[in-house]
Amino acid sequence: MTELSPDLASALQARFGVRFSQGMAVREQHGRDESIFKVPPPAAVVFAESTQDVQDAVRLCAAHRVPVIAYGAGSSVEGHLLAVQGGVSLDVSRMNHILAVNAEDLTVTVQPGVTREQLNEHVRHAGLFFPIDPGANASLGGMCATRASGTNAVRYGTMRDNALALQVVTPQGEVIRTGTRAKKSSAGYDLTRLYVGSEGTLGVITEITLRLYPLPEAVTAAICTFASLQDAVQTVIKTIQLGVPIARVELIDAHSVSLINAYSKTSLRQAHMLLMEFHGSPASVREQAETVQAIAHEHQGNDFEWASAPEERRRLWAARHNAYFAAVSSRPGCRSISTDVCVPISRLADCLLQSVDEVNASGIPYFLVGHVGDGNFHFGYLIDPDDASERERAEQLNRQLVARAIGMGGTCSGEHGVGLHKMDFLEQEAGEGALDVMRAIKQALDPLNIMNPSKIFRLQG
Amino acid sequence: MTELSPDLASALQARFGVRFSQGMAVREQHGRDESIFKVPPPAAVVFAESTQDVQDAVRLCAAHRVPVIAYGAGSSVEGHLLAVQGGVSLDVSRMNHILAVNAEDLTVTVQPGVTREQLNEHVRHAGLFFPIDPGANASLGGMCATRASGTNAVRYGTMRDNALALQVVTPQGEVIRTGTRAKKSSAGYDLTRLYVGSEGTLGVITEITLRLYPLPEAVTAAICTFASLQDAVQTVIKTIQLGVPIARVELIDAHSVSLINAYSKTSLRQAHMLLMEFHGSPASVREQAETVQAIAHEHQGNDFEWASAPEERRRLWAARHNAYFAAVSSRPGCRSISTDVCVPISRLADCLLQSVDEVNASGIPYFLVGHVGDGNFHFGYLIDPDDASERERAEQLNRQLVARAIGMGGTCSGEHGVGLHKMDFLEQEAGEGALDVMRAIKQALDPLNIMNPSKIFRLQG
Repeated sequence: MTELSPDLASALQARFGVRFSQGMAVREQHGRDESIFKVPPPAAVVFAESTQDVQDAVRLCAAHRVPVIAYGAGSSVEGHLLAVQGGVSLDVSRMNHILAVNAEDLTVTVQPGVTREQLNEHVRHAGLFFPIDPGANASLGGMCATRASGTNAVRYGTMRDNALALQVVTPQGEVIRTGTRAKKSSAGYDLTRLYVGSEGTLGVITEITLRLYPLPEAVTAAICTFASLQDAVQTVIKTIQLGVPIARVELIDAHSVSLINAYSKTSLRQAHMLLMEFHGSPASVREQAETVQAIAHEHQGNDFEWASAPEERRRLWAARHNAYFAAVSSRPGCRSISTDVCVPISRLADCLLQSVDEVNASGIPYFLVGHVGDGNFHFGYLIDPDDASERERAEQLNRQLVARAIGMGGTCSGEHGVGLHKMDFLEQEAGEGALDVMRAIKQALDPLNIMNPSKIFRLQG
Repeated sequence: MTELSPDLASALQARFGVRFSQGMAVREQHGRDESIFKVPPPAAVVFAESTQDVQDAVRLCAAHRVPVIAYGAGSSVEGHLLAVQGGVSLDVSRMNHILAVNAEDLTVTVQPGVTREQLNEHVRHAGLFFPIDPGANASLGGMCATRASGTNAVRYGTMRDNALALQVVTPQGEVIRTGTRAKKSSAGYDLTRLYVGSEGTLGVITEITLRLYPLPEAVTAAICTFASLQDAVQTVIKTIQLGVPIARVELIDAHSVSLINAYSKTSLRQAHMLLMEFHGSPASVREQAETVQAIAHEHQGNDFEWASAPEERRRLWAARHNAYFAAVSSRPGCRSISTDVCVPISRLADCLLQSVDEVNASGIPYFLVGHVGDGNFHFGYLIDPDDASERERAEQLNRQLVARAIGMGGTCSGEHGVGLHKMDFLEQEAGEGALDVMRAIKQALDPLNIMNPSKIFRLQG
């Protein structure tokens, strides 16, 4: 379906005026993300500015049994927002108001189009911050939908842990609330956690209440370089097993460091590195850093290079976050196929090092970064999208990696979500029984199958 | 339905032999909890010893459309395990094996009948502990089912945060797994969090993978007494707002302290008190305690009394945990109606103090304890169960308290669950729309309505 019926188009036009568009440029902009899939764009785009807008758009689409795909910042990587069955892209990026900061309760309520950087900018003056940081300046609605996490999750958890309550527009156009501002609750089914990670397949998130944290009294970042990946990874494993409350611990392999240096004009030492951050009181930060330095020394790590000034730290994390763009720009015309496995920490070295050997043997260019404190790491296979054989070889590497991770008690997706790209992997991981439960929930809540259809799992097993 | 059909009884008898019982003593033992409801006992009890047992029992009951109510330690307080529609109590307390301790990953996999004390006894030698502590020596299956928390939740979260994955027998008798041992995942709907807190209404939990924590290097407990409840509560609010990572902070009002002293033969100073625990490195514990002591001084708190020796701490927490029994035994023949609201921390003083005034004015005897760091507290109204008017006055106090908490952005249940007792409150809190979503999920997953029916919500709105 590449066009809406005239009835639906005119109803949406009447309701939304210039905020309804069937123009090709707008549709194409809403029809691609960072994945490698080529899918025709949505038939139209509606720009919602309120919960009422979302309700009306959903109701009109439901009446015509037309798919609705919520769109935030477009930064998803697994094809989540692609209109594989056509339909309407419901752009909520203009719903970008911060509705209430409750500084005393360390909570904030936002609309779904607010980005994480916008939120942090807003709450900084109150001495607060929101830690979840997937790298991209993603929308908080999208981050809820994919159960995002990123660099700070090792200490602060993921969107699962930090979303207290949602307002959701159901596939029938009803508005529900999934929780309160209380820090914990045993009142009924945990609907918040059901919608977090449901990738737009059960409803459209229209408000989010999040936990905030006091800005740490002291923050220090440090780089530690290693001659071998094995040593870097073992340092992380020990750090986690000792319970050090490290706020960030990112692995970048030596090759990726060189890509970053070239792209970001940095002069990081070209070696396997851990990029760390410590939060707490000055004494606690010192104590944590000393503990990790001692562990690193046992594993032939070099002395820490420090970055304590905010500006220095910002540069460092910006360089880390640009790893993806650095890598993609290192091979003109390439696209990145991103892996996302997450394994129990004791298996991290095995899983990662075997996979490095495999990708090295394949000859496919790649970069490697990881939120290794959580046991989560990403290869980006840099492939020529027009070279079917190369793409297939990369996907084969991905399959081997996922099978290995699942065999080690891990998951195919630590934080990116399933989207289109990992549906087979999810089948492998969850098994038919658990998938049937997911299908039953989807069919019960969205019987017309209009909410971001054909994502996460196939309705027929 | 007080008796099983002869067909089902003989099928269960044939399958389970002496592990199937229709004897009145066994049934009655499985037909009561700590709630005030008087309901006829289940028609029979099956003692399951394996997942296969659970599957077979569920399948036989499903074939006869007979309710199945999972039973762990019997310590629930809201009528969760009462056989309001008759049926079979499925006792999983003999499924009490610890299946795998993965010390390097800080995870453990247990059967549902393992109790929290049994688990901690088992993992202590590995330098690990499981923090969730609702007071009672509850089964971990039951703690998952009610999304329990308790004294350590302010630092370590609740069962929601600490259950990594479950094995569940569905109402159709199928076995599913809801997750992996990876610390985080974005792979599909969060089924773990759906079953955690579903109070046995969606399936029977047969295995649980939990997070463990390294035993803290240093642990110190302290008591701080206050002349006014207001000062005690304000001390807690400030402590939380400052982000002090306190491990426990419990409020006990002066009257409840006197009940505890009488029952536990302790000699705690009879004053409103905060009972605290600090975990961390020696330096961090010292720093945390100094911060809180300074806050307490600002609010006219007395100097901390310390309990650093393990034996001393154990006695202190045992006394706290016995508050319930101390209170109940202070009025012979009474039953306790327990409240469980949880509010945003900024509203804790308002909510708690208004409610204290109300219950004092009512003349109903009570005790008051609270996991105040989470904004969660419990009144126990000590009523004569045969005095309908007194019971109604207590329920009226409860209703006023819940309405107040919900009005403040809080929840009717911080940790006990809904069971039978809070169904009206949940309606008030969640609203019809969210309840309809819960109902749709229940009906999709348990279309015969055999899993602990008539709990949490009514199927018809």
